[in-house]
Amino acid sequence: MEKTHTLIYLGPAGSYTEVAAENIIKTTGIEIFNKNAKNSIAAVIESMDNSNGNIGVVPVENSIEGIVRETIDNLIKTTTRVMITGEIVIPISHCLISKAKNIDNIETIISIPQALAQCRYFLERNFPNAQKIAAQSTSEAVKQLIELPETYAAVGSRKAAEIYGLNILCSNINDEKDNFTRFISLGSSTPSPTGKDKTSFAFSTNNQPGALVDVLSVFKENNINLSYIESRPSRKVFGDYTFFVDFEGHIQDENIQRAIGKITPFVSFYRFLGSYPKVILAHS
Amino acid sequence: MEKTHTLIYLGPAGSYTEVAAENIIKTTGIEIFNKNAKNSIAAVIESMDNSNGNIGVVPVENSIEGIVRETIDNLIKTTTRVMITGEIVIPISHCLISKAKNIDNIETIISIPQALAQCRYFLERNFPNAQKIAAQSTSEAVKQLIELPETYAAVGSRKAAEIYGLNILCSNINDEKDNFTRFISLGSSTPSPTGKDKTSFAFSTNNQPGALVDVLSVFKENNINLSYIESRPSRKVFGDYTFFVDFEGHIQDENIQRAIGKITPFVSFYRFLGSYPKVILAHS
Repeated sequence: MEKTHTLIYLGPAGSYTEVAAENIIKTTGIEIFNKNAKNSIAAVIESMDNSNGNIGVVPVENSIEGIVRETIDNLIKTTTRVMITGEIVIPISHCLISKAKNIDNIETIISIPQALAQCRYFLERNFPNAQKIAAQSTSEAVKQLIELPETYAAVGSRKAAEIYGLNILCSNINDEKDNFTRFISLGSSTPSPTGKDKTSFAFSTNNQPGALVDVLSVFKENNINLSYIESRPSRKVFGDYTFFVDFEGHIQDENIQRAIGKITPFVSFYRFLGSYPKVILAHS
Repeated sequence: MEKTHTLIYLGPAGSYTEVAAENIIKTTGIEIFNKNAKNSIAAVIESMDNSNGNIGVVPVENSIEGIVRETIDNLIKTTTRVMITGEIVIPISHCLISKAKNIDNIETIISIPQALAQCRYFLERNFPNAQKIAAQSTSEAVKQLIELPETYAAVGSRKAAEIYGLNILCSNINDEKDNFTRFISLGSSTPSPTGKDKTSFAFSTNNQPGALVDVLSVFKENNINLSYIESRPSRKVFGDYTFFVDFEGHIQDENIQRAIGKITPFVSFYRFLGSYPKVILAHS
């Protein structure tokens, strides 16, 4: 029986996640039969189904804002069997989009708060008195314009403006031009080692002084190069954290398996989140 | 000549930061002659003046959302001479506030996106079709209601409802009842050691494999107990981070001074952010 592959991504249509997903699909050559846009990162993660070859795509990190907390927190706590299977980095170039043909009468600007923040100086300079309205995503903001008067504009992708047939009033409006977002693909199994892999992992330490450094020392003793670490609230006791780390290597590597065995005395919880080919960035 | 102490805090009046600031002032017994509410965390930090005894107060961490990135990023990069001088934790209990006397005709809800997120289930259950508008702060949202019709409501503090003479339609509406925020006080000098102190510190590593763990190992070898670590984007190269850490002890402690000396070969940047009495939390 043939598998039906569904792409499940953070939508609606025209999101940067859809742009990233199209790139991932092009690179991997997976055949997609259905596309399913979800309205939250949590909904993408919860709908990943262990039983078939579905592929999920969500944002995980922006070069200005940092990690996308909703992605990390949901991957750590979900009861769905889901793994990170790959990553891709795409440049973010925001456009000011509207039904109007010019910026003169814009009174209200809609977008996801992060995108509004990324265009803060542009918006303050050009629209000091405009009201800002929060949307769930950039593409949701652009889609809302269809039902709204010409005094509304949205911050979103070129693709979203095209999909919804709207005007791009200004392009590349983000304050920092080096604006990149890293997206991850999700699946239910771990890709084979390529020799240039990365592993994502979460753990909580026993509530003992120095337990965090004890865990990190095990990584060091086993020649594991930690590239990222973040503390996320455990939500049980204020000041208790779950740590999210990225390191080089694949879960099938002997030194990584040895390290995971050795951290057991120091951790009260751990979750392997995936091993996948690392994206090498050429820009500086 | 007597010093004039000004309290500079994230406003406007009625903010949770003002509630925290009042508690800090009560505890420390500092006499305050002026109060100056700023409309952003960056503005509070930038206005801290080295030349007098002003005290700043900003939020730094919430038990659900995690660290307040605007606070950490601005403390790391500011050219103002500013130090963390203390911390306090207060419970956050959101109210739904309006000119209206009941919830029947509420169509639009305003607040800072974090507060809207913290009341997500309450709002979805009671106002599935309400539009959500982003404000700069909870108190700004409440203040805006004065100029708006009765179909608007805001999520904010009891104190803000009282200050602006508005009705509390529902109280304690946050989805998770254990919701605490930690605030820090800012000044220009380091308080003396108390024996129960905490130090905040930021550093970037040289771009060498293992440099992060090398730094953390120095902390461990000098018996420094790391309680928090976070990676913040360096904003230069995607994948390069500045690390923000909290550890136990005071900058005057011999082991901490020794450790800071020893990390020099591994870091390209460091900034001492302050040593201050640690708040002990009793709740669980």
